Amino acid sequence: MALKVYVDRISQPSRAVLIFCKVNGIAFEEVTVTLSKRQQLTPEFKEINPMGKVPAIVDGRFKLFESHAILIYLSCAFPGVADHWYPADLSRRAKIHSVLDWHHSNLRRGSALLVFNTVLAPLFGRTPDPQVASEAEMLLFKSLSKIESVWLKGNGKFLLGGFKPSIADLSLVCEITQLQLLDEKDWNRILGPHLKVREWIENTRNATNPQFDEVHRPLYKLKADLIKQGVEKFTSKM
Amino acid sequence: MALKVYVDRISQPSRAVLIFCKVNGIAFEEVTVTLSKRQQLTPEFKEINPMGKVPAIVDGRFKLFESHAILIYLSCAFPGVADHWYPADLSRRAKIHSVLDWHHSNLRRGSALLVFNTVLAPLFGRTPDPQVASEAEMLLFKSLSKIESVWLKGNGKFLLGGFKPSIADLSLVCEITQLQLLDEKDWNRILGPHLKVREWIENTRNATNPQFDEVHRPLYKLKADLIKQGVEKFTSKM
Repeated sequence: MALKVYVDRISQPSRAVLIFCKVNGIAFEEVTVTLSKRQQLTPEFKEINPMGKVPAIVDGRFKLFESHAILIYLSCAFPGVADHWYPADLSRRAKIHSVLDWHHSNLRRGSALLVFNTVLAPLFGRTPDPQVASEAEMLLFKSLSKIESVWLKGNGKFLLGGFKPSIADLSLVCEITQLQLLDEKDWNRILGPHLKVREWIENTRNATNPQFDEVHRPLYKLKADLIKQGVEKFTSKM
Repeated sequence: MALKVYVDRISQPSRAVLIFCKVNGIAFEEVTVTLSKRQQLTPEFKEINPMGKVPAIVDGRFKLFESHAILIYLSCAFPGVADHWYPADLSRRAKIHSVLDWHHSNLRRGSALLVFNTVLAPLFGRTPDPQVASEAEMLLFKSLSKIESVWLKGNGKFLLGGFKPSIADLSLVCEITQLQLLDEKDWNRILGPHLKVREWIENTRNATNPQFDEVHRPLYKLKADLIKQGVEKFTSKM
């Protein structure tokens, strides 16, 4: 039985796992769990992940959730995965863990809270909280600056001075692509000053294309829909 | 040159790293970075960890921060560490990563925000935010329930059905011991209904004593000081 990967492509960690599998030629079945229909909360899915979140995987009888844990597991369980994704070298591996741990309470938290409390909340029938959005933007901005000054220090094209991407590049970049859902003005204010981050996103995208763009397609479509809705809302006021 | 471990024993992840080193007979030098004196923000310490947080380690020329990454690195770099702390088995290791990743945005977030926004903020010259404290308590309560229903499922004395502790037990338990700083009434309301969690804390403590209690001593002392201050505040009002 092939590996099953439970995802919603609108979820940033889901995209990271999907791109990883596709780029590395891992045979898998994609099972969509639609968050906007709350399918992650059904009893059937909670048998896969009792926390009710995507992504999750089932490999034979083995179940696993949390995207970083999944990326590490896949890197080790499938012999075809090249070493640069999750190096066997103890020190390089430790640094990747450090980036991934840092990610949780910094970039991830800032980005996820900001996107939810601006554009996504209404789609889930919730009210955005501007105070939370404003604090999230501060954390996000600070996190992007730290990526430039700490994680992208050196001459490599990727995090930790790497010349090829690791699972940390994929995880963090898929978080930042979520920001495309923001208003263009907001996106420019946040990403504009971070040239090094924008170059690194492009490096990661180029290193994982065409799979990167293919997996991001539903996000690009949602973005187009949001713009259309915004224009309609604007013209209906005229 | 021996391993250097930069910590403040009032920080829960610092305690986890310290207990781990002591229980496993790792030779190290403890360097105290006093958070209440903002020593984590000095230029000297930022050479060790540019994010300005404890714990951090320096092993020869190798620097590392983020407590989970440190615990994993030490488990692999020091041959004397028993397998149960960070099993070589791929599936068990993956599950430990899953617990540790989950920890960041759930137990850790709930506990750290609650303790800061009740007892610690005034010690750092900050004003506690009751709204944040209340949301943090909800997240903490839910996290403790998930520990019981998901991570402590089965007959083992430790997380993931283990018969011996792993780095995940140590990390999560050191987070929960921070709650001892809370008012007794608050502690009872939060921990009272979670018998299985309380038993597991005792199991982890017993498995790592006398080092566990020795490392926690400054926390117990701070707790005693807070009670004394509370009594003085109360009696000064009489």
